[in-house]
Amino acid sequence: MKARVHVMLKDGVLDPQGEAVRHALGHLGFSGVEGVRQGKVIELDLAATDAASAEAEVQKMCDKLLANTVIEKYTVEIV
Amino acid sequence: MKARVHVMLKDGVLDPQGEAVRHALGHLGFSGVEGVRQGKVIELDLAATDAASAEAEVQKMCDKLLANTVIEKYTVEIV
Repeated sequence: MKARVHVMLKDGVLDPQGEAVRHALGHLGFSGVEGVRQGKVIELDLAATDAASAEAEVQKMCDKLLANTVIEKYTVEIV
Repeated sequence: MKARVHVMLKDGVLDPQGEAVRHALGHLGFSGVEGVRQGKVIELDLAATDAASAEAEVQKMCDKLLANTVIEKYTVEIV
């Protein structure tokens, strides 16, 4: 079973990486880019076969390791 | 209009960051994680109002800046 986790900075948190991308796109001539936020995507191959328990397990992984929940939010998707 | 870009290493390309996450999850007691791949997700706020032209523009951004197409693959999604 595959799970996909998105980890993004929370909305109020400054995202210098995203800002750098926005500036770079502007310099390359891409106008009309009003904002950029950059985050991580983590794809996990799991041995689990039950979607609900796999999702709960991945949420624990996020809380313990994959996301810094002080400044980051995450979403878990079983695919 | 919002676009979401996923940038992942191509399948044959070694992903040391993903491997590090896999090992760390193992050490934390999460067994049953068979593989981990880590990539980037970039969320763009675009001024464009036409989905098709926005998608074409974002694909150009990927080819020019957001992805290293020698080793990375990307997907564009208009949300």
